[in-house]
Amino acid sequence: MSEADPESVQSGSAATADASGGGTSRRALLAWGGAGLALGAAAAGGTAAILRQNSEPAAPGTMGMAVPFHGEHQAGIATPVQDRLHFAAFDVKTKDRAELIKLLKEWTAAARLMTAGLPVGEGGFGGLPEAPPDDTGEALGLKASRLTLTIGFGPGLFAGDRFGLNGRRPVALVDLEQFPGDNLDASRSGGDLCVQACADDPQVAVHAIRQLARIGFGKVAVRWSQLGFGKTSSTTPDEQTPRNMMGFKDGTRNISGTDKAALDKHVWVGAGDGSDWLTGGSYLVARRIRMHIETWDRTPLQEQEDIFGRDKGEGAPVGKSKEREEPFLKAMKPEAHVRLAHPDTNDGATILRRGYSFTDGTDGLGRLDAGLFFLAYQRDVRKGFIPIQRNLAKNDSLNEYIQHVGSAVFAVPPGVRDKDDWWGRTLFT
Amino acid sequence: MSEADPESVQSGSAATADASGGGTSRRALLAWGGAGLALGAAAAGGTAAILRQNSEPAAPGTMGMAVPFHGEHQAGIATPVQDRLHFAAFDVKTKDRAELIKLLKEWTAAARLMTAGLPVGEGGFGGLPEAPPDDTGEALGLKASRLTLTIGFGPGLFAGDRFGLNGRRPVALVDLEQFPGDNLDASRSGGDLCVQACADDPQVAVHAIRQLARIGFGKVAVRWSQLGFGKTSSTTPDEQTPRNMMGFKDGTRNISGTDKAALDKHVWVGAGDGSDWLTGGSYLVARRIRMHIETWDRTPLQEQEDIFGRDKGEGAPVGKSKEREEPFLKAMKPEAHVRLAHPDTNDGATILRRGYSFTDGTDGLGRLDAGLFFLAYQRDVRKGFIPIQRNLAKNDSLNEYIQHVGSAVFAVPPGVRDKDDWWGRTLFT
Repeated sequence: MSEADPESVQSGSAATADASGGGTSRRALLAWGGAGLALGAAAAGGTAAILRQNSEPAAPGTMGMAVPFHGEHQAGIATPVQDRLHFAAFDVKTKDRAELIKLLKEWTAAARLMTAGLPVGEGGFGGLPEAPPDDTGEALGLKASRLTLTIGFGPGLFAGDRFGLNGRRPVALVDLEQFPGDNLDASRSGGDLCVQACADDPQVAVHAIRQLARIGFGKVAVRWSQLGFGKTSSTTPDEQTPRNMMGFKDGTRNISGTDKAALDKHVWVGAGDGSDWLTGGSYLVARRIRMHIETWDRTPLQEQEDIFGRDKGEGAPVGKSKEREEPFLKAMKPEAHVRLAHPDTNDGATILRRGYSFTDGTDGLGRLDAGLFFLAYQRDVRKGFIPIQRNLAKNDSLNEYIQHVGSAVFAVPPGVRDKDDWWGRTLFT
Repeated sequence: MSEADPESVQSGSAATADASGGGTSRRALLAWGGAGLALGAAAAGGTAAILRQNSEPAAPGTMGMAVPFHGEHQAGIATPVQDRLHFAAFDVKTKDRAELIKLLKEWTAAARLMTAGLPVGEGGFGGLPEAPPDDTGEALGLKASRLTLTIGFGPGLFAGDRFGLNGRRPVALVDLEQFPGDNLDASRSGGDLCVQACADDPQVAVHAIRQLARIGFGKVAVRWSQLGFGKTSSTTPDEQTPRNMMGFKDGTRNISGTDKAALDKHVWVGAGDGSDWLTGGSYLVARRIRMHIETWDRTPLQEQEDIFGRDKGEGAPVGKSKEREEPFLKAMKPEAHVRLAHPDTNDGATILRRGYSFTDGTDGLGRLDAGLFFLAYQRDVRKGFIPIQRNLAKNDSLNEYIQHVGSAVFAVPPGVRDKDDWWGRTLFT
C-alpha cells in the first residue's frame, strides 16, 4: 500500500490511528459513539486518514482492510477480486439535472465513508432520536472487508437531452445487439446507473447498496440487483483461479491487476479515445448467464473437458499438464470455449473479467436458478466484449448448457481524485 | 476438539495426515488426483480420520476446519453458527420406501465426505471419462469451511401410509397454524425433507446442496431453497452478537452451544418425550420473514429502539448500558419485541435461534426483497415456537415492518453415530 496522501490527512484522532493500521473497525467507532458523542469530526478525520491512492492493489490475505477510495481509476476494477458481490442497476426518476448531481455528490460522500469501514452520515450511524438513523446499522461492528464501490453510467442517461448530456455519450458506449441464443429479461437488463459493490463480507456489500438506494429514495429506484456468492475470476495471477458453477477454472489468462501496460491497452479509456470526460475510466458489460446445471451435471467428464478445452481437475489446456501453460488452440475442438474466447481467435480482443457465481433459489420446475453473473471491463466495448461474444454466441459448444438472460452496458467514469471530487464530475461539469 | 474415535480411524494416508490437522483441503486432494490416480481408498482414509464426535464445538477462528459429522446429535444445531447458509426443502417423488432408504444412505455418505472437505464419490471428483463426474467440482480447492449438513423430516413424510411410517409421526411435529399477519407463499413453504447447509464459505454450502439434489435426481426434487448471506444469531456468547437487516442485535440471550443443561432442557428431544426414534434429535421451524426495510429505514431512531426494546448502537436493553445486562422487561413498552419474545413473558418457552439475513434481488416495485430467514430448534414445537409466535403475531410492534411469507416445520433426527449409521436409520428400522 502506498502512504497516505499528505494533502488529505487531517488532525489525528482515535479513528485515525485505527484506520492507519488498515483494518478500520466499525466496532471501534461504535463503542466510542455509543457514549452518545457526536462522531462527525472524528469520522471525518478517520476517513481522511485512509484516503490513499488505489493504484497499488492490496496484498492477498488482507481481508478486513480498507481499499483506498481515491485514485486515478475507480477501485473495484484492477483491485484484487473480493469474494462477494452485490450489484445494483438504478433507473433515474428525477428529471432535474441539479438534483441528480446533488445525489451523485451524496453518494460519493457515502461511498468514501463506507469503503473506509465507517457508517454513513456525519454524525455516525445515529443522528437524532427523532430522525431516522443516517446509517441502517447492519454493518456496524464489521470490518471494511476490502469494500469497493464502482459506479457506471448507462446509455439512458444520455438519451435525448434528459440531463443536458446531449453529445456527451461516448461513441464506444454502444447498445448491445441481440446475440444468437439471447433470452433477455427486460426486468434484469439495462439501467441508467449501476453500482458494483464488492467485499470479502457479503453483509458489507449488501449494506452499501442499501445505503445508496436509501439516500437516492425518490430520485432513483433500484431496477434490478444481483447477489454473487463466489468470485469466478481473479486479477491476481499468483492466487488459485476460482471455479465457476460448472466446476471448471475459466479465465486463467485474465488481465493482472498489476499489469499496467495491459490495463492501459485493454481496460482504461485513453486520452485520445474520443470522450475526454471518460479518460481513466472504462466500460462495463454485465450479463446474467443462467446455467442449466442439472443437464451439465449429467454430461460425461470427457465431454465437459472437450467443451471447455481444459481438464477439470487441474485446469490445464488440452494436451498440457499445468493450468498456466500456454494453450495450443489447434489441439482443441474448433468449438471449445477456451479456443473461441482466446484473444488469438478474436484479433487480440481482451477483456478484464470480474464475474461471480449466483444462486437465486429455485425456478418453478425445481431446478436451481444458478449461473454466472458475468462482469467484464474493457477500453472499448466494440473491440472487447462484442467481437468475443459474436464468436461465442455463434460457435461455443457451451451454449447448449447456458443462456444469457440479463444484459447491461455502462460507461465507468475515472476515479474520484480527492475529498472534493465526486462521481461524475468530469461528465457533468 | 475431542480426539478421533479410534474405531473409525483407518490406515494412514496422505489425506489422513492433512485431515488430522483440521484443515482438510480439497486442493491437496485434487493435486494428487490430478495425476489420474483412483482416489477411493485414500479419500476413505481421509474421511475416517476426521470422524470425531461433534459434542464439543469448534473454537472460534477456525474457519477452514472440518466439523465432525458423527455424534450423538446432528451437527449444525449446537455448532457455533457459521457465516453462510444454503437451505433446501425437498418433495419426495419416489413412492418406494426402499428407494427412499437407499437415497438417505447415499446422502449420508456424501455428507460425510463433504463435511470433511472432500469431493463426493468413491473415486474422487472424477470417475470415468465416459461418465458424468461424481462431484460437480465447484468446491475443489476450497477448505471444509466448517460445513455442516443437517437433515429434517417434514409432516408429509408420515402422511397416510406413504412410506410405512404410519404411527411414527411425533406428536410434537404439529402443523403450524395460520398466525395473524401470515402471508404464506405455498411455493416457499413445507417440504417432505430439508437439508440445512451452513459453512463459512457460501460456495461450499451451495455445492453441498447441489450434490444432494443431483444424487436425489428422480427420487426427490427441490421444492424451495434459500441462501442466507449473514448469520443473525450466535450460539457462542463470547462472540459479537450479529445484527439483522434492521441494524439491531437480536437474540442476545440465545442458548449457548456449550450449555448442555439448556440444550437438554430446550433443544434435544428426550427419551421420555414420546417418539423413541427421535431421541437426541430436535424440531426445526423455518420461517421466511420479509422485512419492509424501506419503511423501517424512514422510522426515527427512538421509535426503532422502542420497538425492539434495545438501543441500536450497543444493543443494551431499555434502561441498561450493556448488551448482556439482564433486561428489565417492565421498563419496555408492552409491545416491545424483546419483552414479548422473552421466556418470562411466555411461561419459560425458549428456542435456539440460527437464522440468516437474505437478499433475493428486487421485487416488482423496486424494493429489496430482503429479510430474515428464521431458523429455530427446540425440543417441542408446541412449547417453543408456537406460544412465542402466538404472542408476537398478536402484539409485537415490529409486525408493522415484517411479514412471514414462508413456513415449514421438520423433525430433526439424532446424529449419525458412526460410519455404518445413516440419516433416518432410527425412523426406518
